[in-house]
Amino acid sequence: KRIVLLPGDGIGKEVMHSAKEVLTAIAEEYNHTFSFETHEIGGAAIDQYGTPLPETTVDACKQADAVLLGAVGGPKWDNNPSHLRPERGLLGIRKALDLYANLRPIKGFKNLLHASPLKEEIVSGSDLLIVRELTGGIYFGTPSERRDNGESVVDTLAYTRREIERIVDKAFQAAQGRRGKLTSVDKANVLESSKMWREIVEEKKAQYPEVSVEHVLVDAAAMKLITNPASFDVVVTENMFGDILSDEASVLTGSLGMLPSASLNESGVGLYEPVHGSAPDIAGKGLANPVAMILSAALMLRYSFELEDEAKIIEDAVQSVLDAGYHTADLQIPNGRKVGTEEMTKLIVDYIR
Amino acid sequence: KRIVLLPGDGIGKEVMHSAKEVLTAIAEEYNHTFSFETHEIGGAAIDQYGTPLPETTVDACKQADAVLLGAVGGPKWDNNPSHLRPERGLLGIRKALDLYANLRPIKGFKNLLHASPLKEEIVSGSDLLIVRELTGGIYFGTPSERRDNGESVVDTLAYTRREIERIVDKAFQAAQGRRGKLTSVDKANVLESSKMWREIVEEKKAQYPEVSVEHVLVDAAAMKLITNPASFDVVVTENMFGDILSDEASVLTGSLGMLPSASLNESGVGLYEPVHGSAPDIAGKGLANPVAMILSAALMLRYSFELEDEAKIIEDAVQSVLDAGYHTADLQIPNGRKVGTEEMTKLIVDYIR
Ligand SMILES: CC(C)[C@H](C(=O)O)[C@@H](O)C(=O)O
Ligand SMILES: CC(C)[C@H](C(=O)O)[C@@H](O)C(=O)O
Repeated sequence: KRIVLLPGDGIGKEVMHSAKEVLTAIAEEYNHTFSFETHEIGGAAIDQYGTPLPETTVDACKQADAVLLGAVGGPKWDNNPSHLRPERGLLGIRKALDLYANLRPIKGFKNLLHASPLKEEIVSGSDLLIVRELTGGIYFGTPSERRDNGESVVDTLAYTRREIERIVDKAFQAAQGRRGKLTSVDKANVLESSKMWREIVEEKKAQYPEVSVEHVLVDAAAMKLITNPASFDVVVTENMFGDILSDEASVLTGSLGMLPSASLNESGVGLYEPVHGSAPDIAGKGLANPVAMILSAALMLRYSFELEDEAKIIEDAVQSVLDAGYHTADLQIPNGRKVGTEEMTKLIVDYIR
Repeated sequence: KRIVLLPGDGIGKEVMHSAKEVLTAIAEEYNHTFSFETHEIGGAAIDQYGTPLPETTVDACKQADAVLLGAVGGPKWDNNPSHLRPERGLLGIRKALDLYANLRPIKGFKNLLHASPLKEEIVSGSDLLIVRELTGGIYFGTPSERRDNGESVVDTLAYTRREIERIVDKAFQAAQGRRGKLTSVDKANVLESSKMWREIVEEKKAQYPEVSVEHVLVDAAAMKLITNPASFDVVVTENMFGDILSDEASVLTGSLGMLPSASLNESGVGLYEPVHGSAPDIAGKGLANPVAMILSAALMLRYSFELEDEAKIIEDAVQSVLDAGYHTADLQIPNGRKVGTEEMTKLIVDYIR
């Protein structure tokens, strides 16, 4: 299996190192061969190649079985013109690999729930999966430009039927493998694209009789995520709504530093990255929480390599290390023990071996 | 002063009755003359006139000094084609009166904060004003249509410079009258319209030297509203982001039934409505909480009639009735006393007299 590593910027490099160690341990214990190849993306690529997404990076990713991404961005590049911003690399690689399905599982860890901004009785039991369309909608629609000598501006939210169908199918399938409940989020009382989205969900329903479907308007969904997060199983929505709602959902359980994500294309190649950012303030200090990156590697084993047992071992390892009270500086566990990136990684590797 | 009442659907009728009683008391005590005229909108208008926004309603609103709206919508009209849906009436009246500035103040009531989904230490001290652009963006941009024989679909997010400038000015002015902090929310790393939005905020900054400005991406804003709501003063954003974020913010303090809103045009005519919906399940039972509607009437006195003292009296009345432990069925106050719509209204009126 060929794995491309894109550490990116800030703590991306450190946490990528951790993920590689964990995957090496898995390879050795379970007799797999993983080859690793590192490439640049984001700010690091701008500095080295003058572009956030060099051709060599795209080519390598296209030939890989899976891609792990650390994080991109940092104050150094914040004032660059938009084609020279780190996040352009991220948008570019999503589009280049046609990574249309972004999956974000969000589940609280019992001994971290106390750090949730929500009351324990509200957040406990939350276990949801947000399925976000990632390569269409207003992120990529044209025209997206100034007009009338800069007196006006337009962006375009565009979808093809096929783009909506494939993400909706993905979400139904995910719901089948979970608790069988699908919440489709749209703004069908205003947007034509949402009306079409809702129609397609209704059409597809018959193919998945064991899944129950509800439609929720995006504004109502933004409320319900807070008032009753445990009521959701799988949530499917278009790109921009997914961006907002998945970030909203990511803070509910109080452990943003623990959340992985997977972005998949139709051939099963995926890009796996933590939900958190590049955290430039703590970069290079050995303090970063590597768990989200390590759990992203577990998702890679599950979704791209179909190594469910190995994925599970990593997840169990994380749980057991947390249960033993170990945590990085971004978290607190009552009577726990604070450790750095390296020690946290070692504890997880030790469990695997 | 000519006030048009649009009770609309569901509990809209009941709570409008309460607002009218309160305004009548104010008129009598403070020697004002308010004339009231009632018209239909939403589902009620569909039933009676075959359209959610009859011409007579638009004409009456155009001649009014202010408009009070109850709520629109209900299951009866949920499956109507889109031009015959109650919310079309709402979108239509906003556009017809050019109500570009939607103001949503969100402030917790001390003895209701316990009902917040957030921990008390997170939510306490929250006092924010969301300023949402209400007549532009993707809500009204064209084209908004199916294409390629229904194989694709587009919506258009369009703004003119002038539309952005006027809402940004409004928000700066609001911040001047509050704690002097403005958070502008956009998605400038993806949308051209957001880049223009951010430029305009930067240009305007010099005119309001006493206001401090920060730019936050919409996904980050959705997180920060939950993790640190008390850090916001005035939030300004475009129509769709404002729809999502203002609903998200409305559940933070645990008392959605208390939140008013104001939608203003350039000549100061405004439409005032509660944030909550038409609550068809409890309509006609005398259980509805009239406070959001009554506080909306207070905003009308403040913003359209410049009757600050009278607005304040209504707000004080609500606070004192709550302090005395009275609440409607949607709320709970420890050791409080549950009352219906009518008694709640009477308590508020009694305080005013
Ligand atoms: C960096 C940005 C362009 C990106 C997005 O909006 O998709 C990020 O917020 C994300 O969710 O991965
Ligand atoms: C009913 C709907 C069209 C409306 C909107 O999205 O503007 C509502 O959600 C609101 O916020 O007032």
